[in-house]
Amino acid sequence: MNFFTGKPSPEALSFFKDRNILDLAHFSKQELETIMNVANYYEESLNAKKRLHDMDGKILAALFFEPSTRTRLSFEAAMHRLGGNVITVTESAGAQTSSLAKGETLSDSITVINAYCDVIACRSPIHGARLEIAQAATVPVINCGDGVGQHPSQALLDIYTIIKEKGGIDGLTFALVGDLKNGRTVHSLVDALAMYDVKLIFVSPPELKMPSFIYDKLAANGIPIEETDNLLYASKKADVLYMTRIQKERFEDVQEYERIKDVFILTDLHVALLPPGAIILHPLPRVNEIVTDVDSYPGAAYFRQAANGLPVRMALLALVTGCVL
Amino acid sequence: MNFFTGKPSPEALSFFKDRNILDLAHFSKQELETIMNVANYYEESLNAKKRLHDMDGKILAALFFEPSTRTRLSFEAAMHRLGGNVITVTESAGAQTSSLAKGETLSDSITVINAYCDVIACRSPIHGARLEIAQAATVPVINCGDGVGQHPSQALLDIYTIIKEKGGIDGLTFALVGDLKNGRTVHSLVDALAMYDVKLIFVSPPELKMPSFIYDKLAANGIPIEETDNLLYASKKADVLYMTRIQKERFEDVQEYERIKDVFILTDLHVALLPPGAIILHPLPRVNEIVTDVDSYPGAAYFRQAANGLPVRMALLALVTGCVL
Amino acid sequence: MNFFTGKPSPEALSFFKDRNILDLAHFSKQELETIMNVANYYEESLNAKKRLHDMDGKILAALFFEPSTRTRLSFEAAMHRLGGNVITVTESAGAQTSSLAKGETLSDSITVINAYCDVIACRSPIHGARLEIAQAATVPVINCGDGVGQHPSQALLDIYTIIKEKGGIDGLTFALVGDLKNGRTVHSLVDALAMYDVKLIFVSPPELKMPSFIYDKLAANGIPIEETDNLLYASKKADVLYMTRIQKERFEDVQEYERIKDVFILTDLHVALLPPGAIILHPLPRVNEIVTDVDSYPGAAYFRQAANGLPVRMALLALVTGCVL
Repeated sequence: MNFFTGKPSPEALSFFKDRNILDLAHFSKQELETIMNVANYYEESLNAKKRLHDMDGKILAALFFEPSTRTRLSFEAAMHRLGGNVITVTESAGAQTSSLAKGETLSDSITVINAYCDVIACRSPIHGARLEIAQAATVPVINCGDGVGQHPSQALLDIYTIIKEKGGIDGLTFALVGDLKNGRTVHSLVDALAMYDVKLIFVSPPELKMPSFIYDKLAANGIPIEETDNLLYASKKADVLYMTRIQKERFEDVQEYERIKDVFILTDLHVALLPPGAIILHPLPRVNEIVTDVDSYPGAAYFRQAANGLPVRMALLALVTGCVL
Repeated sequence: MNFFTGKPSPEALSFFKDRNILDLAHFSKQELETIMNVANYYEESLNAKKRLHDMDGKILAALFFEPSTRTRLSFEAAMHRLGGNVITVTESAGAQTSSLAKGETLSDSITVINAYCDVIACRSPIHGARLEIAQAATVPVINCGDGVGQHPSQALLDIYTIIKEKGGIDGLTFALVGDLKNGRTVHSLVDALAMYDVKLIFVSPPELKMPSFIYDKLAANGIPIEETDNLLYASKKADVLYMTRIQKERFEDVQEYERIKDVFILTDLHVALLPPGAIILHPLPRVNEIVTDVDSYPGAAYFRQAANGLPVRMALLALVTGCVL
Repeated sequence: MNFFTGKPSPEALSFFKDRNILDLAHFSKQELETIMNVANYYEESLNAKKRLHDMDGKILAALFFEPSTRTRLSFEAAMHRLGGNVITVTESAGAQTSSLAKGETLSDSITVINAYCDVIACRSPIHGARLEIAQAATVPVINCGDGVGQHPSQALLDIYTIIKEKGGIDGLTFALVGDLKNGRTVHSLVDALAMYDVKLIFVSPPELKMPSFIYDKLAANGIPIEETDNLLYASKKADVLYMTRIQKERFEDVQEYERIKDVFILTDLHVALLPPGAIILHPLPRVNEIVTDVDSYPGAAYFRQAANGLPVRMALLALVTGCVL
């Protein structure tokens, strides 16, 4: 299958106009493939050094109420590459510089910011915030992570990367490794993978297993699942090894974090066991869960994966604002 | 009176070139109406989805040495909608990222930043900072709040909102509610209202009464004032009910804040008493001083008010830089 | 010598394409003069109010992992004046909003950000970070300060200022005053001055003397050095008096800082002793090491110096990206 089939039809594109990207469960496989094709269309424009004006005069509000580097910067760069402008709010646990510090609700903030922009990209530390945000928004919203909830643009760039690296999704075996309980990137990725003919291996400590609703969803789609806490075993079988960080900020108990944080560390030992042509992904940032020696392995695709965030986010911004039509 | 009378004459516009907007006391009623007309001119451009280039190549320095969302974002969005660019400094009490953290005076900071921009929008926690800023600035400055001092662009968008909602200012009764002592938005609003034929009701706890210099100013203009701490009473009489937040950051004593903070909470009970066609304003953010049930009242204009910040701030930026000529 | 000789030849300009600006030791006197001439070319464009498009469609990543005002803002303004766009990360000791807070290495951060921009301007609190940054970067990098290491764009604007104020560098006597041990601006400045025929006077407390490797470098170039802790003495001899701040953030022991911080305070007493036509420079921000009375002395050039940061940084951005060709 040649997954990338050129710029989609106006009908396929217009489906996304004024739509929110909150999670992937609401999209069909065909819609997901539309996004992939638009991303590829923009990647080719970038490679050809084309100066784009698709979003000339438009404004993105990048609202990051939780620390972020690559998601925020790639959305902002995507907006600039499309010829648009950006207004930004960044927050950290240690210091709040926006009205949330004064006690304003997220809903009120969004209601106001609607008037200042054409599209919102928003990250919140609160699980489920995407629903509150979407309810208040009158411009399209792209959820950039809501606590342990969803992070759909990450899953889309994961899928885009796998297609580019492996030629497609069907028939592959995926090992998802790390904190599967709190990892919003794997939650969103599983939503996408469930549309395909894949096998999944969940590799986590017992305390950090996938939430049960995800098992139910996969069972409904007939996706075979294996569980293990043995990374060596999983490495032997994985066409795609998806590492994640044990996220300190999700633990209430620091000692629990300290006990678990180093349970999975990917080394050359694991890489040597991988099937031929296997790739390693990671949503980044990494702390120490992939040793830097692994970076030189040709299948170590995590930095290429991060780079793919740019065309994928260009696609999302242009699609939901109708600017790619 | 049809307040909006189209784009003003070149003479009226050129009055503002290279001028600071520090407070409203320095402007005449006619000058204020020029700003209103330019704001309306830009609002019509926005509604018509016109791509503007009035400030192409120009740079706004948005310097917010105190937390802000809507003021900063609306100024930045205004600059982008006019085709200009923005450089930004944001600070919070918890973390300073600019040279103020290294002990630099505000005056030195402004003297340097002059060279990097065409116009400055500046907020400071220090009462009276607008004078120090204006003295150091060689480019036009828009004061975005100096401690408990003034916040003129807020008052201008308040006036703009009232004109749009009520058709004009003369003849209306205004109830200003909350922390009238420390609320810079009501201080600036009163400066504007004093130019018109209005009645004022001040609704505050005794500890948070308007500063005496404001009473003197209003007496000199022959504006009738009533004082009360009864919000129900004021609701019966107010054509415009202007709620404000009790601002925690202005209290030295947290217990004092805790005792007073919930003294005025606007509910459907008050709304039911309002005269026909009355509107409710609030500079936002709100904490709990207007219950969300009130949001569905047609006269609850506070989110429309926040949206009006965009055209009003476009007008200010274009006027002081001479870009609307 | 008329130092500014117009826009350099295409060969001289193309030397800088895809090159990093990490320190000045790697550049020749002729290359430094190319930068000066491009800066002057851009300053004339700014003075003529020309709208430039040299970097249209390009993106600068301004990564400031340590507080900054003038360096960051002048780089961002420079990018906008050249028609380009900016994505920004700012950090402070008190609050981290990027992935560094999650434990990511600087190398990983840069590897990712490469994909989102055309040029990086980066400041880090870590001495020597410029080497790690340069190794990870695939786009050109401008070092904006790495701990007590180097700050080459500051030295370049210092040189540019001296040429504008004094007509050249050769034959001048320089007094460098303050924390010469930790001051990265003087470290970079000395690298530039070592290319010329100058005399140096180092004025510091014994605890804050220049690092010995700098003495070696100057000896190798045959530059005469005098040392003193007497600012009055140095004032009598200096054609260029270069004041620096005793930087609190470089002291591990706060009491040590308190003891030393006021050791050199420049007043009218010193100014009266200066040779005719002498100038006073300071990289800013200042705390109290130059009393504000001195600001009115015609040779007090520190604010003009800060303003020169704009054309010098325009030159650097356009040179390393090949956009001035």
